[in-house]
Amino acid sequence: MWHCQGVSRPEPPAGAVRQGSLREWNLTLVLDRIAAADRPPSRAELAAETSLTRATVSAVVEDLVTGRLVTEAEPTPRTGAGRPARGLVLAPDGPAGLGLEVNVDYLAVCVVDLTGRIRHHTVHRADLRPVSPAEALGRLAGLAARARADAAGQGLTLAGAALAVPGLVDDAGRVRLAPNLGWRDVAVAALLAGHPPLTAHVEGVPPLVVDNEANLAALGELHSGPPGPASFLHISGEVGIGAGIVLDGALFRGARGWSGEIGHMSVRPDGPACRCGGRGCLETYTGQEAILAAAGLAGADLPADTATTRLAELAAAGEPAALRALQEAGTALGVAVAGVVNLLDLDTVVLGGGYAPLVPWLRPPVLAEISRRVLTAAWSPVTVRPAVLGAEAAAVGAAGSVVRRILARPAGWLARHG
Amino acid sequence: MWHCQGVSRPEPPAGAVRQGSLREWNLTLVLDRIAAADRPPSRAELAAETSLTRATVSAVVEDLVTGRLVTEAEPTPRTGAGRPARGLVLAPDGPAGLGLEVNVDYLAVCVVDLTGRIRHHTVHRADLRPVSPAEALGRLAGLAARARADAAGQGLTLAGAALAVPGLVDDAGRVRLAPNLGWRDVAVAALLAGHPPLTAHVEGVPPLVVDNEANLAALGELHSGPPGPASFLHISGEVGIGAGIVLDGALFRGARGWSGEIGHMSVRPDGPACRCGGRGCLETYTGQEAILAAAGLAGADLPADTATTRLAELAAAGEPAALRALQEAGTALGVAVAGVVNLLDLDTVVLGGGYAPLVPWLRPPVLAEISRRVLTAAWSPVTVRPAVLGAEAAAVGAAGSVVRRILARPAGWLARHG
Repeated sequence: MWHCQGVSRPEPPAGAVRQGSLREWNLTLVLDRIAAADRPPSRAELAAETSLTRATVSAVVEDLVTGRLVTEAEPTPRTGAGRPARGLVLAPDGPAGLGLEVNVDYLAVCVVDLTGRIRHHTVHRADLRPVSPAEALGRLAGLAARARADAAGQGLTLAGAALAVPGLVDDAGRVRLAPNLGWRDVAVAALLAGHPPLTAHVEGVPPLVVDNEANLAALGELHSGPPGPASFLHISGEVGIGAGIVLDGALFRGARGWSGEIGHMSVRPDGPACRCGGRGCLETYTGQEAILAAAGLAGADLPADTATTRLAELAAAGEPAALRALQEAGTALGVAVAGVVNLLDLDTVVLGGGYAPLVPWLRPPVLAEISRRVLTAAWSPVTVRPAVLGAEAAAVGAAGSVVRRILARPAGWLARHG
Repeated sequence: MWHCQGVSRPEPPAGAVRQGSLREWNLTLVLDRIAAADRPPSRAELAAETSLTRATVSAVVEDLVTGRLVTEAEPTPRTGAGRPARGLVLAPDGPAGLGLEVNVDYLAVCVVDLTGRIRHHTVHRADLRPVSPAEALGRLAGLAARARADAAGQGLTLAGAALAVPGLVDDAGRVRLAPNLGWRDVAVAALLAGHPPLTAHVEGVPPLVVDNEANLAALGELHSGPPGPASFLHISGEVGIGAGIVLDGALFRGARGWSGEIGHMSVRPDGPACRCGGRGCLETYTGQEAILAAAGLAGADLPADTATTRLAELAAAGEPAALRALQEAGTALGVAVAGVVNLLDLDTVVLGGGYAPLVPWLRPPVLAEISRRVLTAAWSPVTVRPAVLGAEAAAVGAAGSVVRRILARPAGWLARHG
């Protein structure tokens, strides 16, 4: 079976309709129209758009307002006689999503509200390779508890959490393998469950979802961009390299949810040994630490993000070793990306995570390899662009995935908080 | 937009139902149940399964029988009192699909009936690289005319045709690029249209669809295997190498329909020059002619299929050059396949076309590379198997695609032939 995440909506009730499911459908329909609108719609506009009666729309909106999912926008100026119609918007002070990330050299926590705004964001830099999984997740739980307190102070209720990890996750929330962290068969969901609960119990919103960081970063990027079904390859360049494949607005997860391991595509079959056990994987050429080492910045004892900023400064100043390292990394990345484009016929490649500040130097060699190697390149250009979100994409994507679950099934939240 | 071929069914009519569309929906529904049944269903069984009335089912079946889409199977033995129920099956003497293929070193034509049986199959071996597109398509039209006469003699009506080409095709039926044939911007649909029409005009069934041969071969394989939504990578190993990506029973076509160009994924970025203009593409290592050359069979002046058979014989006899050539080809193929599996998390790889007879020697090195390079290989095995169909897969897939269009919208056929 193919798992495409994204928001699955309840189907419109068919055949014999129970009142419960009809109410749920109407709630979802109206909330979806409010969330998707260009400008705050009035109740009358919602009725016209949904074919529901004015009375039904009014009752549904009242439920949504009482449950802090929707609020009235500032009145729009009168355009004629009568009262101005009050438009409806998603509530910025209702439920929110908690996004968590464990990566090789940082922990991140963020809170995103229903409108998609980031309300809290913490990044804690530390090399987590020498640290046990329990210790790493304990530190993360500490950061999360502070985020929760901050969110509560802003009137927000955390309705669920999602955790991004740089590895392969199974359905039970266990990390099967995270080669760059050195984790193998780590029950992260169980380890986090040992800490005090951070989120309210909401039907239809799991308290904790564990997912691959490249997948969540791609979802973060998808929902930070313009609305509409986008298709792109999002590459997260951290110590490891992961990719999220977004097709028509949905994440493509593969047969068992383990797609996107672009970091282990081969660039040179007999190249340097990789932490995965293979040789010549893309990661050995274009992982963050490989680029820094090639530029002579490996021994500088700086955190990777600071070293990356330094590398960008050196490249901007025309320092030859920095330029050469980025040229070589971009060429290897371009070889792999050209292979993906030949295989999947994607027209947009997004460079995210630690790559974002390096895009000015990575993009030209990536485009050169695409132009050399992609069969359709001559008449069908591929766009290579930096991600809208930077290194925070995975945590933001994680928090956003919680929010979208609430929007997709508002009845679960309303049952407790309405 | 993402084009997933496969059979698109009309949606069940919603809201106000017009009689025309309701009749069409019932025809499609009943025909689909007959096509999908394990054993010939009776009218009563169809009524129970579809929730249609007995009278409606009888009327629909009468239309389908009159239109030669359905026929009554041999009576089943009585199981109790009363008349034996007569089961219904797809008609073997109604409409059929014409499948055409132009490849680098052969032309192929086949006819597939509604039941999926191959009723005519011709392969004409000739190196088409020195031949103009018009001449090649003229020869193909000659073979097709003979296939049509043979089909008519068997009581079949060709309802439409599909043409497989080893290159990139646009929506207008133009080959943008077929590197191994040396074709660029060839209007194949227009060139074939200069020959007398071969198929009946049926609403909803285009007289000629042009598609990539690897896509059609993958569809041929999909519909030759067990029913149900399969997911696999199908690799067609001819002079060029193409792939069809099947996800949950549908072909994945990519943003512009040009997915599957696995032959131009890089194995060694600075390897041998490829006809595409790149270097070190998979095709330069594992294309049919590359394997034969490595085995010392290139100058033998044999057609590729005969030379491939000879290579298999030499390998079976333990001839060192043959074994070494296949080992090296399989290793290069394995590097590319491992990259695809890392990227897409597919669990089945099918080796088809000219690879089918070489699978005993290609499979071990392919599996070895998967095991070395795929992150999930240790706990999530990948099956590598030969295709059910051999080199005829693309033409059979092409003919089958026509048949599936008729099954998906029987009303078009019935309007003229009912």
